[in-house]
Amino acid sequence: MPPTITDNQTHDFKAHYDCAHRSSLQDDETDDAYVKRITRYSDGTVKLRNSNIELMDQDILYHLALGSESHDLQEMFGDVKFVCMGGTPKRMENFAHFIMNEIGYKLPAGTQLQDISAYSYRYSMYKVGPVLCVSHGMGTPSVSILMHEMIKLMYHAKCKDPVFIRIGTCGGIGVDGGTVIITEDALDGQLRNSHEFTILGKTIHRPAKLDKKLARELKSLASPDDPYDTIIGKTLCTNDFYEGQGRLDGAFCDFSENEKMDYLEKLRENGVVNIEMESTIFAALTHHAGIKAAVVCVALLNRLNGDQVNAPKEVMNEWQARPQILVSRYIRKVLTHNGQLKSLFGHQGSIKSPRRFKLVQQESQAHE
Amino acid sequence: MPPTITDNQTHDFKAHYDCAHRSSLQDDETDDAYVKRITRYSDGTVKLRNSNIELMDQDILYHLALGSESHDLQEMFGDVKFVCMGGTPKRMENFAHFIMNEIGYKLPAGTQLQDISAYSYRYSMYKVGPVLCVSHGMGTPSVSILMHEMIKLMYHAKCKDPVFIRIGTCGGIGVDGGTVIITEDALDGQLRNSHEFTILGKTIHRPAKLDKKLARELKSLASPDDPYDTIIGKTLCTNDFYEGQGRLDGAFCDFSENEKMDYLEKLRENGVVNIEMESTIFAALTHHAGIKAAVVCVALLNRLNGDQVNAPKEVMNEWQARPQILVSRYIRKVLTHNGQLKSLFGHQGSIKSPRRFKLVQQESQAHE
Repeated sequence: MPPTITDNQTHDFKAHYDCAHRSSLQDDETDDAYVKRITRYSDGTVKLRNSNIELMDQDILYHLALGSESHDLQEMFGDVKFVCMGGTPKRMENFAHFIMNEIGYKLPAGTQLQDISAYSYRYSMYKVGPVLCVSHGMGTPSVSILMHEMIKLMYHAKCKDPVFIRIGTCGGIGVDGGTVIITEDALDGQLRNSHEFTILGKTIHRPAKLDKKLARELKSLASPDDPYDTIIGKTLCTNDFYEGQGRLDGAFCDFSENEKMDYLEKLRENGVVNIEMESTIFAALTHHAGIKAAVVCVALLNRLNGDQVNAPKEVMNEWQARPQILVSRYIRKVLTHNGQLKSLFGHQGSIKSPRRFKLVQQESQAHE
Repeated sequence: MPPTITDNQTHDFKAHYDCAHRSSLQDDETDDAYVKRITRYSDGTVKLRNSNIELMDQDILYHLALGSESHDLQEMFGDVKFVCMGGTPKRMENFAHFIMNEIGYKLPAGTQLQDISAYSYRYSMYKVGPVLCVSHGMGTPSVSILMHEMIKLMYHAKCKDPVFIRIGTCGGIGVDGGTVIITEDALDGQLRNSHEFTILGKTIHRPAKLDKKLARELKSLASPDDPYDTIIGKTLCTNDFYEGQGRLDGAFCDFSENEKMDYLEKLRENGVVNIEMESTIFAALTHHAGIKAAVVCVALLNRLNGDQVNAPKEVMNEWQARPQILVSRYIRKVLTHNGQLKSLFGHQGSIKSPRRFKLVQQESQAHE
């Protein structure tokens, strides 16, 4: 029988961990000041909580198809201010084109966006000036791998105070499909505001904290003219889409519709407004790295009304654009405030007239 | 403070669950016979452990971009005998072309393989006669979603006794890079031979059992002429690639090299020969569905010697072909045994002479 970790051992490890943490605090230092000291150099660039990395000959970011010695990461990524993440490569490619237009970022003539991580066959990454758009796959382990490598990338590239934002989809609890939800707290399957890690066989929890000020700022950017609601609430993060979210339509189902509804009702009583599969790890690792972060999702359905997503494709596409619109407002605001948004309106890249552009394309095609 | 699930409650739930399970056994029925009765119709087609599905108007397999009423799933997939899964779309596309050649499957002239799930933007799926090749992403939640939908697909398609095989990569423990490892038992981070599920907020475990006979059969297909070892052993399944696997090179590291080595040594003492991130959920859900399953991975490095994968790309590509070769031998053996392997050798699809084919292509290109 292999040894398993008992609750006592877990508790001892946690006590040891907490104690080690407390002993590293300097006199009168708050937790926030401590995290800032160990995660930032004085110029605001990212410092790693792992001294092994600077001693390595080369650090390969396997899942991004990048390396600290094979690529000039500071030259490539040193200007990144915003790291936006979402589930699928397609959504992040769409977002890259969308944000390019929104911030008026112009590509040199004869160039197009390229998937920087194409050769990893894992994640996709697009860079639009100060905005990095990365896909993270589904579920917390997939996000975990990406977060480790993105945080190391920020370090190698000497990025200053980057902000991480997850743009996702979710099931709503008591909210209509199409509602935009900003996560206040990310909760695990047992409604704890933390993410559980197993490290060297021992269980620890790290707080799944997001930046409350950033959440409020995002909320403030919702417009009264938006034909949908934008709300802040608690987000439940699960390890499965079917049984794990109380769906009746998985390959297995051992509970009744009443038990499911009781559970969803209990979630609602606890302030949960949506369910997805990535928020706790995203919050826990950004918080641990001292990185300001937010999660903005759109609800694809109200789970109190059913399990299957039935909205037509066009409606769904319009819904999925909503978190992107909110995040783009935030990015434009920050860039404008910093005087980095040179030309918001008035140019369309190399296209002077879309109508004439189309005509030239047609003419060209006709002359084979 | 939200309610959390105490160990007592978890235990009660498990007791209730076990009791419900025992009470469903018929007189003198073994567990295996019980699972067979509730997961198979008398003709061997897959039966679901969820009575809700047959009552639904339509079952949408969202993440596969398929639906029970939009597609004729029986017509499309009724002949599937083998479902092969692996992490990346690229690896599964490669495997599809490889197995096509190995089993002598011929596409109609003027056709090519198509990614059946392309419009899901989540997973990729290729069908080569009786073999379905599907990517599952990284980590247990991503595999979980796919497994629910693949098992439902088997049900809708009325597939008979399908076999599921995961083809992956892993870190070896005390074995050289390039070694092929067949999983005997899948263990979670605390070395339990089960996968932990949180369902309606309650924690349950399902046994992470794989088919031992299938594992032995796969092992028997290793050839003494193979220039590498093929072994059977226990597989550790983690929720993270860095801290979760005791790597020193993540964005965070709170342990020393000695603590890491003690941990890896403890794994070895417990019979663990490799570490990956998908085996427990794959084993638990196939076992729960009464589906015969195996996990075959190739080690990309020996973790006792380091953390970073340094083998050159060509070597790595050759290594990744090894589990595919073993699985193809198994598929050929079964098809031959069933008299379904009509023409193993002697045809190359529509190409009679590869040399002349190349010449025709060149000639054709020159005449623009």
